[in-house]
Amino acid sequence: MDENFADWLLFNLKKKDSLLCLGMDPVLDSFPRELSSLPPKKALIEFCAQILESVEDLVPVIKFQIACFERHGSEGIEALEEALRKTRKSGIISILDCKRGDIGTISEHYAEAYLSEDAPLGADAVTLNPFLGFDSVEPFLPFLKFKKGVFVLVRTSNPSAKNIQELGTKEGPLFLEVAKMVRKWGEPFIGKSGFSALGAVVAGNSPEELTLLRSQFPSIFFLVPGYGAQGATEKEVALAFDQKGNGAVINSSRQLIYAFQRPPYSGMNIKFWEATRLAYIEARDKLNQAIKERVKK
Amino acid sequence: MDENFADWLLFNLKKKDSLLCLGMDPVLDSFPRELSSLPPKKALIEFCAQILESVEDLVPVIKFQIACFERHGSEGIEALEEALRKTRKSGIISILDCKRGDIGTISEHYAEAYLSEDAPLGADAVTLNPFLGFDSVEPFLPFLKFKKGVFVLVRTSNPSAKNIQELGTKEGPLFLEVAKMVRKWGEPFIGKSGFSALGAVVAGNSPEELTLLRSQFPSIFFLVPGYGAQGATEKEVALAFDQKGNGAVINSSRQLIYAFQRPPYSGMNIKFWEATRLAYIEARDKLNQAIKERVKK
Repeated sequence: MDENFADWLLFNLKKKDSLLCLGMDPVLDSFPRELSSLPPKKALIEFCAQILESVEDLVPVIKFQIACFERHGSEGIEALEEALRKTRKSGIISILDCKRGDIGTISEHYAEAYLSEDAPLGADAVTLNPFLGFDSVEPFLPFLKFKKGVFVLVRTSNPSAKNIQELGTKEGPLFLEVAKMVRKWGEPFIGKSGFSALGAVVAGNSPEELTLLRSQFPSIFFLVPGYGAQGATEKEVALAFDQKGNGAVINSSRQLIYAFQRPPYSGMNIKFWEATRLAYIEARDKLNQAIKERVKK
Repeated sequence: MDENFADWLLFNLKKKDSLLCLGMDPVLDSFPRELSSLPPKKALIEFCAQILESVEDLVPVIKFQIACFERHGSEGIEALEEALRKTRKSGIISILDCKRGDIGTISEHYAEAYLSEDAPLGADAVTLNPFLGFDSVEPFLPFLKFKKGVFVLVRTSNPSAKNIQELGTKEGPLFLEVAKMVRKWGEPFIGKSGFSALGAVVAGNSPEELTLLRSQFPSIFFLVPGYGAQGATEKEVALAFDQKGNGAVINSSRQLIYAFQRPPYSGMNIKFWEATRLAYIEARDKLNQAIKERVKK
């Protein structure tokens, strides 16, 4: 399968020598002053476009948090459509972090909305919530034959993730059961790299669980949130990678897109997108270093 | 608490003598021929508006399936904004079936998007997915003090719901654990009726589980899908109600909005919205009868 999402993602990570996904969670209240006079749609479009232009030679993959756009209704969604178009043009892989999940007939609409080629909100991959079981994921699977990807929530990075995800079942904690389902559902979509186009979201701030999941599920590609603003260190998120340094991409959102607000960038008299570029390079290098050390062991 | 969503919903159900929520799942491919020449946005707006006008004296509550609108990007969302505005004007309660769930900082955006008064997509209530635990629900709770409602997925009506929701935990099946959380989280929002503004989605096509949940969770208001196109009968969904005939609202979507496609309505030479009106009355009366019989026992 030449057109496998996991293969394509890995190729892009290597090509740009970066394992860091830029998370685009644009929140008007956090925008730099120069954008504050613009109406919401225009401000969202400008913010995303400036950052994209500033980092497009560095960044292999961008994750868009759809909630930040939905908050502004159809105008916000228009801004997201524009940002997705620009991302596509730049050759950067896009992940739409929408965490959808519904009954089968409804999930078909979501799959069409986010993975079909001609959809206004078409992205390269989406995140999905597994609570409704297989038929919420099934309508997305045919798209995996066409270089599209899916990341199913297995273990999230928020404090109350444990409420449900760590409930003990007969076989172990619930998140392990979900991981087993993801492995099974994803088997037909394993690429040359050995990873499936059906991946998983696995929190970077739970080192023990990350270690367990990495060792037990070698075919599942991980999208790892929790690095940066949510507290996970480079050393911790490095546990998401296998012994060859493959099998995961690490996301950071607020630490990068709002870098202009914090030292040393806030004192530098630079544009917000320049701060994002510098913060991205810094985080990317730290991450590469941590993974090099992990691979050596 | 005078402004409690559950109280308000119950009042409206009694006022209109109907326990049937109209589910608006507009799919272009299923639209009547007379709308097929319109561009998607216009067709969606027309379809929803015609049905709304036709049933507004009968229907206490409408559930909008956001996926059907998202499928068409920002244009679809514009149509949803228009439909929500018209629903608000008509005095009918709106439930946005979006099944959202994300980490706390992101769920805040969803809560603002769907429950704040001035949001373009503001509705009276939403559905939420509990997989991320309490902090995905928490940002919605402050709105419950202002006549807004939330229905958390507890047991869904799709075939593979069992994959996760019926996994056995130490305390019983997972969905029971979720119901216990919903009860606890919803305690501060119980109205004069004895029901909380934090309700639950409970499938109508699992009679045993419905019976169990009804008897064990008297304070949780149920939104019940699965009636009609998904196969549950009146007798089955009647199990969602308590001995006074309270505590639930039953949803039907395709059976009502596409009634014009099936006998006897397809042979009647009437407009699609007239078929919906007739089908609504028929289903409402059957449901009222079934619940009367349940209450008698």
